[in-house]
Amino acid sequence: MMLIFVGLGLCSHKGLPLRGLELARDSDWVYMEHYTSLLPELDLRELEGWVGKPVKVVDRQTLEENPEEILERARKGKVVLLVPGDSMVATTHVDLRLRAEKRGIPTLVVPSSSILSAAPGLTGLQSYKFGRSATIPFRDHPSTVPYDTLVENSARGLHTLLLLDLRAEEGRYMTAGEGMEIMLELEARMGKGVFTPETLV
Amino acid sequence: MMLIFVGLGLCSHKGLPLRGLELARDSDWVYMEHYTSLLPELDLRELEGWVGKPVKVVDRQTLEENPEEILERARKGKVVLLVPGDSMVATTHVDLRLRAEKRGIPTLVVPSSSILSAAPGLTGLQSYKFGRSATIPFRDHPSTVPYDTLVENSARGLHTLLLLDLRAEEGRYMTAGEGMEIMLELEARMGKGVFTPETLV
Repeated sequence: MMLIFVGLGLCSHKGLPLRGLELARDSDWVYMEHYTSLLPELDLRELEGWVGKPVKVVDRQTLEENPEEILERARKGKVVLLVPGDSMVATTHVDLRLRAEKRGIPTLVVPSSSILSAAPGLTGLQSYKFGRSATIPFRDHPSTVPYDTLVENSARGLHTLLLLDLRAEEGRYMTAGEGMEIMLELEARMGKGVFTPETLV
Repeated sequence: MMLIFVGLGLCSHKGLPLRGLELARDSDWVYMEHYTSLLPELDLRELEGWVGKPVKVVDRQTLEENPEEILERARKGKVVLLVPGDSMVATTHVDLRLRAEKRGIPTLVVPSSSILSAAPGLTGLQSYKFGRSATIPFRDHPSTVPYDTLVENSARGLHTLLLLDLRAEEGRYMTAGEGMEIMLELEARMGKGVFTPETLV
């Protein structure tokens, strides 16, 4: 009886850590979601080859509104849920973990690479010098939070990691260009001079 | 000709992602360091079994002062350097990457799990609500930075990730208890009331 959350890391199934691979091989059922983040190079057949058993892909609705099958199976055996990035960054998984624990099902979390630590490393910036991060939401859910965060961090001389909104179920992934346009619109409205065409991004 | 930095993740060699495993299997030489962070469950023989070739462990001095062997080999073939955590968080690796690039040796970075993203997930706290992180240095290198960071983040209602100093070459790893004692001493001196015996850690 166990529900194990395993991070798949970035880009593809190949961010899966050895520990997660061993747990998946040793489990009774393997599930995966890839709607909380984009895995552009995911190869499901190859992943199943590594794991040695079928991997059942679940969508947002199943995972958030109807996770009964997963929880019931976790009550009887060992279930692994593969998720993009680090396994506990998205609130969905925190919620599912809490549901499992409330039913007395033990849970285990296997971390993997996350954009939160990879972005500083890949850009060559010091992770110590990052302030709070924020997400740029699509225009139909406007928010000043990414701009406010940038104002706050800039005043302290800190870098800001701005994440891009996505709605996998609608096939929508914000591009960096779109994110920058939204930030420029916020700049035009808020006028604190923290995001201009001269800003280094 | 290539130098590839691959993160080993947390705890043991089993944080190695599949992509890093494939690159190590396909490389001419594999090096590893484990002085920039503690891997308490590391099993070098088992790691070599996964990789299918010898893994040469290098110490701080070799990597920082005398990386000629690694750079020379990277000029001739494909070298993988396995490092604890995410591969680009420690400045040592950034420095080695810069040295390689200056000599015209292409580099590649394979991220893995880092305490920076795993700690929020494992504690159940929201990664968005973390401000800047800081390291608590040993008493022989006293610093007010961890305390100042805590003051700054607390004022903004943010969590603070405090990392513990280590000197692997001396076999010294700061315990959480020692870190808390140092923070209490800083509190006694600085008196801003952000780290008391009642503080939730």
